[in-house]
Amino acid sequence: MPTFAHPDFGAPRFAGAPDARFVPAPADGVLPENFFSTTNLPTYVRVGGEWRMPREPRMDSALVLDGDGALWIREGRRVRQGDQVAVGHAEDGSEGIYVHAQAFLGGGGDEGEFKFMTSEVSREKPIDYALMARILVEERERGGYPVWVTGPALVHSRARADMTWFIQHGFVGALLAGNAVAVHDIEASVFGTTLGMTHSGEATSGGHGLHMRAINKVRAAGSIAEAVRQGVIRDGIMHACVTKEVPFVLCGSIRDDGPLPGVHTDTLAAQDAMREHTKRATMAVMVATALHAIATGNMLPAFVTEADGTLRELATICVDSSEFVVSKLKDRGTHQAFGVVTNAQDFMHILRLYVERELDARIDASVRHGVAATLR
Amino acid sequence: MPTFAHPDFGAPRFAGAPDARFVPAPADGVLPENFFSTTNLPTYVRVGGEWRMPREPRMDSALVLDGDGALWIREGRRVRQGDQVAVGHAEDGSEGIYVHAQAFLGGGGDEGEFKFMTSEVSREKPIDYALMARILVEERERGGYPVWVTGPALVHSRARADMTWFIQHGFVGALLAGNAVAVHDIEASVFGTTLGMTHSGEATSGGHGLHMRAINKVRAAGSIAEAVRQGVIRDGIMHACVTKEVPFVLCGSIRDDGPLPGVHTDTLAAQDAMREHTKRATMAVMVATALHAIATGNMLPAFVTEADGTLRELATICVDSSEFVVSKLKDRGTHQAFGVVTNAQDFMHILRLYVERELDARIDASVRHGVAATLR
Amino acid sequence: MPTFAHPDFGAPRFAGAPDARFVPAPADGVLPENFFSTTNLPTYVRVGGEWRMPREPRMDSALVLDGDGALWIREGRRVRQGDQVAVGHAEDGSEGIYVHAQAFLGGGGDEGEFKFMTSEVSREKPIDYALMARILVEERERGGYPVWVTGPALVHSRARADMTWFIQHGFVGALLAGNAVAVHDIEASVFGTTLGMTHSGEATSGGHGLHMRAINKVRAAGSIAEAVRQGVIRDGIMHACVTKEVPFVLCGSIRDDGPLPGVHTDTLAAQDAMREHTKRATMAVMVATALHAIATGNMLPAFVTEADGTLRELATICVDSSEFVVSKLKDRGTHQAFGVVTNAQDFMHILRLYVERELDARIDASVRHGVAATLR
Amino acid sequence: MPTFAHPDFGAPRFAGAPDARFVPAPADGVLPENFFSTTNLPTYVRVGGEWRMPREPRMDSALVLDGDGALWIREGRRVRQGDQVAVGHAEDGSEGIYVHAQAFLGGGGDEGEFKFMTSEVSREKPIDYALMARILVEERERGGYPVWVTGPALVHSRARADMTWFIQHGFVGALLAGNAVAVHDIEASVFGTTLGMTHSGEATSGGHGLHMRAINKVRAAGSIAEAVRQGVIRDGIMHACVTKEVPFVLCGSIRDDGPLPGVHTDTLAAQDAMREHTKRATMAVMVATALHAIATGNMLPAFVTEADGTLRELATICVDSSEFVVSKLKDRGTHQAFGVVTNAQDFMHILRLYVERELDARIDASVRHGVAATLR
Repeated sequence: MPTFAHPDFGAPRFAGAPDARFVPAPADGVLPENFFSTTNLPTYVRVGGEWRMPREPRMDSALVLDGDGALWIREGRRVRQGDQVAVGHAEDGSEGIYVHAQAFLGGGGDEGEFKFMTSEVSREKPIDYALMARILVEERERGGYPVWVTGPALVHSRARADMTWFIQHGFVGALLAGNAVAVHDIEASVFGTTLGMTHSGEATSGGHGLHMRAINKVRAAGSIAEAVRQGVIRDGIMHACVTKEVPFVLCGSIRDDGPLPGVHTDTLAAQDAMREHTKRATMAVMVATALHAIATGNMLPAFVTEADGTLRELATICVDSSEFVVSKLKDRGTHQAFGVVTNAQDFMHILRLYVERELDARIDASVRHGVAATLR
Repeated sequence: MPTFAHPDFGAPRFAGAPDARFVPAPADGVLPENFFSTTNLPTYVRVGGEWRMPREPRMDSALVLDGDGALWIREGRRVRQGDQVAVGHAEDGSEGIYVHAQAFLGGGGDEGEFKFMTSEVSREKPIDYALMARILVEERERGGYPVWVTGPALVHSRARADMTWFIQHGFVGALLAGNAVAVHDIEASVFGTTLGMTHSGEATSGGHGLHMRAINKVRAAGSIAEAVRQGVIRDGIMHACVTKEVPFVLCGSIRDDGPLPGVHTDTLAAQDAMREHTKRATMAVMVATALHAIATGNMLPAFVTEADGTLRELATICVDSSEFVVSKLKDRGTHQAFGVVTNAQDFMHILRLYVERELDARIDASVRHGVAATLR
Repeated sequence: MPTFAHPDFGAPRFAGAPDARFVPAPADGVLPENFFSTTNLPTYVRVGGEWRMPREPRMDSALVLDGDGALWIREGRRVRQGDQVAVGHAEDGSEGIYVHAQAFLGGGGDEGEFKFMTSEVSREKPIDYALMARILVEERERGGYPVWVTGPALVHSRARADMTWFIQHGFVGALLAGNAVAVHDIEASVFGTTLGMTHSGEATSGGHGLHMRAINKVRAAGSIAEAVRQGVIRDGIMHACVTKEVPFVLCGSIRDDGPLPGVHTDTLAAQDAMREHTKRATMAVMVATALHAIATGNMLPAFVTEADGTLRELATICVDSSEFVVSKLKDRGTHQAFGVVTNAQDFMHILRLYVERELDARIDASVRHGVAATLR
Repeated sequence: MPTFAHPDFGAPRFAGAPDARFVPAPADGVLPENFFSTTNLPTYVRVGGEWRMPREPRMDSALVLDGDGALWIREGRRVRQGDQVAVGHAEDGSEGIYVHAQAFLGGGGDEGEFKFMTSEVSREKPIDYALMARILVEERERGGYPVWVTGPALVHSRARADMTWFIQHGFVGALLAGNAVAVHDIEASVFGTTLGMTHSGEATSGGHGLHMRAINKVRAAGSIAEAVRQGVIRDGIMHACVTKEVPFVLCGSIRDDGPLPGVHTDTLAAQDAMREHTKRATMAVMVATALHAIATGNMLPAFVTEADGTLRELATICVDSSEFVVSKLKDRGTHQAFGVVTNAQDFMHILRLYVERELDARIDASVRHGVAATLR
């Protein structure tokens, strides 16, 4: 167990500090405004020129000086009217209270200040859709090359229409995915199901063979593009890629059924094909895939080199149902990844909504400035 | 390991069945239309009047009869032009192929048919927001009593505005929550942070004490309602409950800071207070809380008794970031719970959007029918 | 919302039933022995020859008949001494109480009886290591062919020694894995780290390149087997496979660094290589891998055909940190999978311990029977 | 998006650096020993006295200087025999290669060096059972006061015997838990089930009422201690606490059935009772409970004050099936928590095994030193 030394209270910052100030509690269970709120770290209080540690330390409580001159840490609800309660916000000793944060937290960022909510990836953190929408719209405006990397959950769960919208509206530079994304998308176009499951999530009778029948139709046509031309595939993600000429790379895996024609069954050839796009990438959006997200993360630089030689961070959004994939991506070196812990279907739906709002706001601003708006 | 008996092929359903039909593959790696798609279950094929099992069984493949009369299960990609491939969809023997599903799946629902996507709760299943929105609007129309049960993640992650909207617009019969929901909500109203974290998810300097200061202000005011009246609390969930007179029950727990005045610190008193509302409940919406969801699930009947004595299922929606809470709720007997695996913030945002759409659709329909619409 | 019909109380099973029996509570908050414990389902109680529904239904409570002849469902703690409390266990009406389980639970297995803990995969369920150990030992005894499918977490987290032990002691028919399993295992042998992380989980300086250096050494040697012979690889999983001549298939993926020589970079060639082993498999153990587990699940029949033509279930154990992978495996049709929700490191450690105990028990039994024991 | 400045290559550390050294690749796809392994961060290579950035940056690759003097980052497998490949490990410019880590990683710990596996809590990190066992044994030796905080999953999943062992052998200073832990433990003692589930995880007929019957028996006895004395409770966790006089605090929650006599139904009284033990705590072990772990974390100081006034970190172990609870505990300020991501049952089993080994090792050592060993 780490042990640690008490601070050197002979140092000038401590020697010149005032005594802590105490104010009586205004009522039972009510603390004075500006009360000092405790942490769970070693804490020293200057009383009568002497630095002392209070008894019964815990966080989220008050510092009380009793009639005998003893210092206690006490929950607010247990404080009685008139009890002497320490006030002040400073934790650096300048108001007579010192929290020895470096003791265990290390000397890192923010000088080891005690804080809540410091984990990097958490479902409890707010998701800034407005920011992500703005980045996407700006990428489109400056002719950037956002690479989207998606897993099959996206198609399963009806985000298919939203993904198609992003492709059709110029927000996708290239799509990197596996055979399954295309298979489920095409099954949805041909049969209206994914893995035999209907839009409302019901398993259908005979449904287990539908993805195989969809694959077989495309194999019979010879290619995905040809199947689009023949009208076998009438809508959806692959249809949009073909008709909008958005490049896609379908990478093979050992889980693949079929596979569809055009899938890179050799993983090294697939890596080379992916890298042609990651080299050009100015942004990355990774949705619901561990395998493809980490593969792409391995290939992506953390930065973009602009034409003028300046560098900026390569914006990387990683969406998954659990904190795990994003943490894993960071653990494999993609430190710049911004994690969103949510359901892929919901992510796509709200992101599209915010992008539409951002576009509307820009059209409005253009109109106000007398500019013919054909942004959308 | 369970073993099992082969089917009795002397039974009439088998005795009268035809031989399986085989059709040549039209090209290398392409199966005939209507090919039989295999499962991983014991499968019997009638050839020359005899029921035989094919070799090398696996799912998602084709049934091939070779020149020597041997039956093989083979991946479609390995089939050559002209190979004899079994066709047909029936798995009950009526077209000469029998899948012995009862062997291991048990004799339960759907006669043990082989299916994909049968798990009850999964992030991969589509979320039917339109249906949930319709149920909520119908509950409001018929004067139902939807009980909402929420955890603090809802407030943390900016779903606060959406929850407030639902309260203000009459979709909440009663709110059941813990001290933390109210604390975070009030911290957000007073300081603009939750646990010291800003709207954009940054930890603030000095932020760890803000929830304690918020609590202290309400304790000084005497009650939440009084803090609303005094203007200490100016917006948000608790403000809406007070101003719209929506009843709420704040249940104490050992994690509570403070607590706020009005929190039921006795858990039995809290249960009694909750039950006053669950008795009247006609619907339940549980968001991002294991403790409160399961506590409420324990008290809720699975059904609603209408005024005329008929019964219907009590619609129960349970939202969480992982499958675990919903499965646990079901494991504790709340079998009727409908699980939504997503982020609370996104759920609230999309649900509100769909409710607004549902209301608009009803207004439009009313207008078309010449009815003065004041629904919204 | 589903509605449902009340039971037909004219049917013989109801017509002939007795009235429910009530017994006074022995003390405040204490129920009579044999009290009827309620569910959340529609419940009918026969009183005075009439079937009636009690008020305020909920589960885990008692049925009380008050002085006015009204029936209530009441928590045990709220029952007073002398209150008339229904007794009996039967829920089928035979003792005067009928729980209408079919109402909502469907008519499936066990006649829809109300039960807790019915989910198929849950971290809350006990793990029967003794059973798994017995199956593994029996497989070895009868010359079975257990296929192990593992992900890299197994190597990361120090289960490496245990996996090596299973290979060395004849419990592994074939090992199916990806490039990363071999890379981490070989990095551990050459440098003592995995992805630059030490045994105790610390990231090392310069460590991010160590897996690349390990790969390069094997590429320089020409093959894994040659690297073993040259002493580059001195211990671990791959070393055990080579020296014990246990076949392994390393399947390529787009995430691979290197890859190592011998990795099947073509995913269809990899599938074919895997299938040579799944065809022979008599058991499958899948640890900490979604990709490889589902790929293998796709290829595995649900059953084993014995030499005498009888069939038995193919025992399939699937270990993962969350319920998700096992549920997904089942959702893709591998219904027979037995899920273990735990950490791969702990699983391997305890499984080995139980296998060693099982072997000791068999040796003891052999010795007692005067048999020369060379089992271990 | 953050942008950043290039380093000042006029600074002495860069001005005095040598050119990078290049060595020919020994064979196709094989790099020279000591090759420089790239990162995804901005990288500068000194060639001919000039610092230049290579093209096509990515991690886990080699730096190649082509015949035209251009610098490329290239995967090892794509390097041909004789290609000029940069060698060296230093990333600080001292060998002619500079990785600009501060660019995006911030200037924090370790000077922003690029590393893998830096997340604090991950199921992929090894679990150091030997260390935890040593701490527990040392705590017992020095008369420490380890507080155990447990959730009901521990009892559900057969870790009950191991928890009982730790209590009986003096490793538990106090047990903090909820009503459910005691209910399941007592149900197991009385009926052999938990929530009606058998040891092997099967739901039993009539099982849903067994926990209510167990509670009722203890309510009839008057207290847990009295139920032990009367022989109603014959074994298990609560039995061990009573017979070994290990203090326990059972805290009420709104989920509780019953509750059992002795449960603190008032949450503030429960907090006060818990704090009597956390004040004395010299170590904390939290297993499978979010509510109780965070409640205890709120009360625990991060440190222990020894009799001589020195401080040491208060060892805190937190075990859960997912990273979430541990991250949450840290997000609520318990930064010193050491997270173990695994199944509670497996954790308890292996921890006990390692404690037994540690005790055996100490006995052996004592014997070797001629000391009469009665440690165990």
